[in-house]
Amino acid sequence: MTTTAFQDYYPDDFSHCYGCGRLNPHGHQIKSVWDEEESVAHFTPEPHHMAVPGFVYGGLIASLIDCHGTGTATAATYRQQGRPMDSNPPLRFVTASLNVDYLAPTPMGVALEIRGTVEEITEKKVVVAARVMAAGKTCARGRVVAVPIPDTMLKIIQETKK
Amino acid sequence: MTTTAFQDYYPDDFSHCYGCGRLNPHGHQIKSVWDEEESVAHFTPEPHHMAVPGFVYGGLIASLIDCHGTGTATAATYRQQGRPMDSNPPLRFVTASLNVDYLAPTPMGVALEIRGTVEEITEKKVVVAARVMAAGKTCARGRVVAVPIPDTMLKIIQETKK
Repeated sequence: MTTTAFQDYYPDDFSHCYGCGRLNPHGHQIKSVWDEEESVAHFTPEPHHMAVPGFVYGGLIASLIDCHGTGTATAATYRQQGRPMDSNPPLRFVTASLNVDYLAPTPMGVALEIRGTVEEITEKKVVVAARVMAAGKTCARGRVVAVPIPDTMLKIIQETKK
Repeated sequence: MTTTAFQDYYPDDFSHCYGCGRLNPHGHQIKSVWDEEESVAHFTPEPHHMAVPGFVYGGLIASLIDCHGTGTATAATYRQQGRPMDSNPPLRFVTASLNVDYLAPTPMGVALEIRGTVEEITEKKVVVAARVMAAGKTCARGRVVAVPIPDTMLKIIQETKK
């Protein structure tokens, strides 16, 4: 298992995400790494991340799958291109579609494990399947269709900096 | 348009949700109301709810669709049963599946409008289609399959209070 998270390789402009940005002090700062052919992230929900007392909020679970999915898509593309994640040009994926099936209520108070596998990888998109586990039990399954960040967004990021 | 939000009728035990709980000071406190046959909610993302500079985080959009969907499912079921939302027994729905298609990047700095329509309503589930608009443009479409909160969760909510 590597020690530097996918998200920690994102350049500063791509590191403000509420889900996974290392520069967003209010966000979840999700960290994903490879574990052989799967990607893995761990996240312990805060007490206020609840749905009803005792159970984790489904929107948080969707967020974990979302950022773990785009992070995995990014890392998988660097790997496919045979170059390290700190090489140029930097890659960043955004979500085209997100799908989550909530299989069982997710208990509060334990670290969640999110595991991803790359189902499809082309120049246009990367499809990542993910599952979320609590204490060894799979509570949710999801799928992220990730696409390279469009030029229109890159242009506005640059304008926002001015 | 009614003035009391669906979520404001939830009993206290169902009002701690990070997405829509009126008793969760750290949460989004989403409020949904009827607008004739559609349900509608408005939410202005905070600056830290970003994906990349200038654009709203997709996980937040998923959360808005999630809570607006379960809220709409709850309100639609009361309406179908011909009783007001403050009558007993209280209803509460949870999400069985959530689907979001991100059609266009969602700009920061404007109020988002989330609109829902009930596609299917049975005793076992309510399906709500939703769209998220920014400045009149539809940025995301989603679908929530909502189911009545299971007895196993109700039991743990009661145990959590002890």
